[in-house]
Amino acid sequence: MSLELSKKAAAVKPSSTLAITAKAKELRAQGKDVVGFGAGEPDFDTPENICDAAIDAINSGFTKYTPASGINELKEAISRKFKNYNNIDYAPEQIVISNGGKHSLENIFTVLLNPGDEVIIPAPYWLSYTEIVKLADGVPVIVKTTKEQNYKLTPEALKAAITDKTKALILNTPNNPTGMIYTEDELRDIADLAVEKDFYVVADEMYETLTYDGQKHVSIASLGKEIYDRTITCNGLAKSYAMTGWRIGYTGSPLKIAKMMGSVQSHQTSNPNSIAQKAAVEAINGPQDSVDQMNIEFGKRRQYIYDRICNMPYISAVKPMGAFYVFVDASKVLGMAYKGVEVSTVAQMAEILINDYNTAVVPCADFGFDDHLRLSYAISIEQIEKGLDRIEAFLKELK
Amino acid sequence: MSLELSKKAAAVKPSSTLAITAKAKELRAQGKDVVGFGAGEPDFDTPENICDAAIDAINSGFTKYTPASGINELKEAISRKFKNYNNIDYAPEQIVISNGGKHSLENIFTVLLNPGDEVIIPAPYWLSYTEIVKLADGVPVIVKTTKEQNYKLTPEALKAAITDKTKALILNTPNNPTGMIYTEDELRDIADLAVEKDFYVVADEMYETLTYDGQKHVSIASLGKEIYDRTITCNGLAKSYAMTGWRIGYTGSPLKIAKMMGSVQSHQTSNPNSIAQKAAVEAINGPQDSVDQMNIEFGKRRQYIYDRICNMPYISAVKPMGAFYVFVDASKVLGMAYKGVEVSTVAQMAEILINDYNTAVVPCADFGFDDHLRLSYAISIEQIEKGLDRIEAFLKELK
Repeated sequence: MSLELSKKAAAVKPSSTLAITAKAKELRAQGKDVVGFGAGEPDFDTPENICDAAIDAINSGFTKYTPASGINELKEAISRKFKNYNNIDYAPEQIVISNGGKHSLENIFTVLLNPGDEVIIPAPYWLSYTEIVKLADGVPVIVKTTKEQNYKLTPEALKAAITDKTKALILNTPNNPTGMIYTEDELRDIADLAVEKDFYVVADEMYETLTYDGQKHVSIASLGKEIYDRTITCNGLAKSYAMTGWRIGYTGSPLKIAKMMGSVQSHQTSNPNSIAQKAAVEAINGPQDSVDQMNIEFGKRRQYIYDRICNMPYISAVKPMGAFYVFVDASKVLGMAYKGVEVSTVAQMAEILINDYNTAVVPCADFGFDDHLRLSYAISIEQIEKGLDRIEAFLKELK
Repeated sequence: MSLELSKKAAAVKPSSTLAITAKAKELRAQGKDVVGFGAGEPDFDTPENICDAAIDAINSGFTKYTPASGINELKEAISRKFKNYNNIDYAPEQIVISNGGKHSLENIFTVLLNPGDEVIIPAPYWLSYTEIVKLADGVPVIVKTTKEQNYKLTPEALKAAITDKTKALILNTPNNPTGMIYTEDELRDIADLAVEKDFYVVADEMYETLTYDGQKHVSIASLGKEIYDRTITCNGLAKSYAMTGWRIGYTGSPLKIAKMMGSVQSHQTSNPNSIAQKAAVEAINGPQDSVDQMNIEFGKRRQYIYDRICNMPYISAVKPMGAFYVFVDASKVLGMAYKGVEVSTVAQMAEILINDYNTAVVPCADFGFDDHLRLSYAISIEQIEKGLDRIEAFLKELK
């Protein structure tokens, strides 16, 4: 036959976030002083106690296969965390450890979807959601939120999107890229619909520890037996513990789903890195002061970046309550002129910022919002200040 | 709609190898002196220079995201290895680093297959092949080899299996579970057919360094431009460097395929563990004496286990030339009686061995051969001796 490749894989969009990061890296290699608002990665080092646990694992020869869905010690630690922090009962056997949050999502949709099943994804959304769903033969159904509703999905909008093919909703709180947090009441409304209409909720809670102003993160699976039975709670160590490179994600889910995910994973990747699993045990069971310390720092940066943006022309933002992103409305920039040329897309705006101002930002067209930018504040306050000065200088050039 | 889960995922067979390993572990926990011929994992520790490189990576803060398809330093090391060891030219950008060999195979079939495409798999085969192909919407076409042909695929048998839906052939040399190695001439015949009939060859060369009696491992992609263009060479660090728990696999492939795999991986899992990548650089670039040392030891075990099996009643084997498995023909055991009960399957034989003789072996029904067993000799010679004594004792009970 022919050597034609997979149509589905060929349709995967290369990540625009990675493209920006690559461009910034290239300029840095040329000696340019680039400020990077692009990366979704804490600038802190992995805490020392966690690194020590990894080194102990290496020295003690913990470098062999583990059970495919993860070691029991880690599942037990996560089970306790779910109970104490999220108020959800997941027994260790309901937990599957994966190679990071993306991998958990891949496992989830491989197990949930049959061809043509619809997955409701509120926009703006993290750009890998749509690609992961499509690779698992699902159909993403994008529901756009509004700035007026703080970029949150309303029950009305959700209701309007539900069809007899709706298999799941992806709910990301605290949210990337908006920084918004769903309240318990808002979650109850969504849970009621999921139960009434019988679809799953994939709760991506990767940023759960990153909340500000005393905001409380609530897990939708904690709101009752019926929604618990329909929820897969997805999380990981990367953001909370500055462990992005280690690649440990996990899910809590109904037992039947956990068993199927474990079985799929046993053939598709087998166990996650054994050393990272031991590091993860220490991250979850060990002292949490470094998490608190990082949060205080992120909180300061958030206030600073938000205040500055409020005082800039043409751009605005809703104050983020969690995660480490600010979602910037740049709609007023579009149609204006920079050096005599019309700025007609946020991608073009991002191009100008990186080329003329050495400042990397993420245009959010691939996040389902084509007139917004995402700025990460997972960089030092000095860097943030410098970058914002540059963005302000750009904005003042607009006519 | 309903909460029905994925039919495809529900059809995934739990791994029977893992079931045996779990049973052996359970008995050990009860204090039983179990000999485990089941595990496909070297009993050696990861060499010290590799562990040191990992510890350096941790201490220097190399714990952040890397490019999704792996760090350039590792791709360059692998590119050189392909050139020097396999005589294949793969530029660094043709290489994709993954979370282990299984993950590389998942990436490959995600990129190669459209629904209904056929993948020819010679039996006996490593049991995850069929599940990975089916999860990627492919149809496994099993071609049974014969003991008389040393369990190798013949051009005639291959030819007979090719249809207009054939997209790829999986070729595993040195082979798990048979330990056979394809010669250059045999590979040329297969390559000719792949070129003539236009299908891909997925060359799984995970055991390439494990060869005995001066046998040479040949990579099919090295045999000419036309077969190079149709081959994805798949490999990993687990078996050669005693790095099973680290989870680093890799592929060399035509650039277009590498780019698609990188793109898929960027959404589905992102980069493999950053620390393991640095360890892999040292494994490939560093001194290779530990590999040689392990091979000498495996070679001794191979000779011992083969000689013993030749002298046992009712079972036999073709002498393995590579990997660390011996594929045991137990067809004559079937139909005999043990303690008055007929032994009718190899699964039953394996049950008796683990329950009555504390000895774990892998029955190969899930490898496509229902009258054979796989014995791994990746355990110490003392353990091998003890285990073989027990198997012999069992065989002498047969009537």
